Amino acid sequence: MNYQNKSENYKKNNKRNEDRPRREERRTEERPAERTEESRVPEDLIIGRNAVLEVLKSGRPVDSILMAKGERSGSLTAIAAKAREMEITIKECDGRKLDAMCGGAVHQGVAAVTAVKAYAEMEDLFAAAEAKGEAPFFVLADEVEDPHNLGALIRSAEAAGAHGIIIPKRRAVGLTWTVGKASAGAVEYLPVVRVANMTATVEELKARGVWVYAADMDGEPWCQANLTGAVALVVGGENHGVGRLVKEKCDGVLSLPMCGKVNSLNASVAGGILMYEIARQRLGLKAR
Amino acid sequence: MNYQNKSENYKKNNKRNEDRPRREERRTEERPAERTEESRVPEDLIIGRNAVLEVLKSGRPVDSILMAKGERSGSLTAIAAKAREMEITIKECDGRKLDAMCGGAVHQGVAAVTAVKAYAEMEDLFAAAEAKGEAPFFVLADEVEDPHNLGALIRSAEAAGAHGIIIPKRRAVGLTWTVGKASAGAVEYLPVVRVANMTATVEELKARGVWVYAADMDGEPWCQANLTGAVALVVGGENHGVGRLVKEKCDGVLSLPMCGKVNSLNASVAGGILMYEIARQRLGLKAR
Repeated sequence: MNYQNKSENYKKNNKRNEDRPRREERRTEERPAERTEESRVPEDLIIGRNAVLEVLKSGRPVDSILMAKGERSGSLTAIAAKAREMEITIKECDGRKLDAMCGGAVHQGVAAVTAVKAYAEMEDLFAAAEAKGEAPFFVLADEVEDPHNLGALIRSAEAAGAHGIIIPKRRAVGLTWTVGKASAGAVEYLPVVRVANMTATVEELKARGVWVYAADMDGEPWCQANLTGAVALVVGGENHGVGRLVKEKCDGVLSLPMCGKVNSLNASVAGGILMYEIARQRLGLKAR
Repeated sequence: MNYQNKSENYKKNNKRNEDRPRREERRTEERPAERTEESRVPEDLIIGRNAVLEVLKSGRPVDSILMAKGERSGSLTAIAAKAREMEITIKECDGRKLDAMCGGAVHQGVAAVTAVKAYAEMEDLFAAAEAKGEAPFFVLADEVEDPHNLGALIRSAEAAGAHGIIIPKRRAVGLTWTVGKASAGAVEYLPVVRVANMTATVEELKARGVWVYAADMDGEPWCQANLTGAVALVVGGENHGVGRLVKEKCDGVLSLPMCGKVNSLNASVAGGILMYEIARQRLGLKAR
């Protein structure tokens, strides 16, 4: 999928003033500074009350709604209700932060971050494994905030033969377009589920017969755990690693030796190394 | 090392107008737009003929000199000669590109990109291995252009117990501050060598008894090659992988299985997986 083309198409479809050239011209002369600013707005941001309501009705996948703190007047109430009904995360943010994100465009207290793809349900992940006749292999990305890291994790998971990724709704980046680009297209092939509570998800997976392993410092060597069968790998975020409560629920902890002076790896690199050990064992590849 | 603090100190030491408050005030009023632009200049860029000559004399590590195409008048000749004498790469670039990089500041056709650390020599890498009483383990990053990827590769190499990184002088990012930050401090511990010709370097390593492996699609499974003893891993860049000429000189090619639909991994992730297989074999860790 070509994201650039999609973006071009989207811009084309949204050029509302094309049949009103004179007004467009006048506005350009009046507010040149603002228009320059607008070009810096991320391509996945839909700005203003009407535009956000429209995108919610359109069926286009939406990652989250950004709402200025304290504002709940007029159609914002309707937007919030609609988003809740559709189970879309509403993120309250500072009015000035919203101003900056919208590059000076009039946002009326609200903007929608569109997603590069719709989220899947947990059942889709189990169904994907069953369709391939394989034991489930899932990756949980706990509080990964960097879109390049989440994109790289999705790419590695798809390449290592995982059946899906699970991410939390809060304190983590969603399926934004930057994540889609960083995944090098893998987001098109791998279902991504978003859950409200990662700890509850670990418990659910265990109850369904999946062995869940966290990536952290104080566990057994990554290459000596039995990672065949139904398995899920929990990778932590850039700042705090796997959350304490999530880690406590896991069946085991996998560790990579640190042979030098730094004490951790990049989140997507550590995730990739562990996913490929899971892949090796699942493929039955003997190591030297 | 705290890069932020270093940058603050640097800015402080360079506030030349501190003892001339009235003139500073007047200039601020006269050119507000330009001053705003200046704040967007990367912290590792030294702009203008005198400033660049000074930094070359100061002994502060310089990654490269950016020179506007065609300009060789006045002190630019002296700067070019000094840079060549110090074996610092001179990159010719379009005048307008230089304008943009310098954010509108008067650059007089030249800027210096400072490095977060001085480059090492090939002998330093062999000496580092010998000092530890270990067989050499080097990583060659061939045409890696993304600073985050190079930073992550340096971080993984240091953690996996490698003795140094080798990068090419051309068509690759150097030890910029972004690379230093992305390495999470590992750049402080791991020597980085820059060479003019990667193919010649592979030959030199082989002549000195190092087995050189390229990471690519058409080789043997990564976990079945004998990676003990003196070993070097060549990781390719984001766009073309390992160069053809470099690959042909290698002793072997290591491949990771692609179990899904995407046909490659992120360069720093692939590098990390292969480095940890080398680490596993060197540590004598038995895999299941």
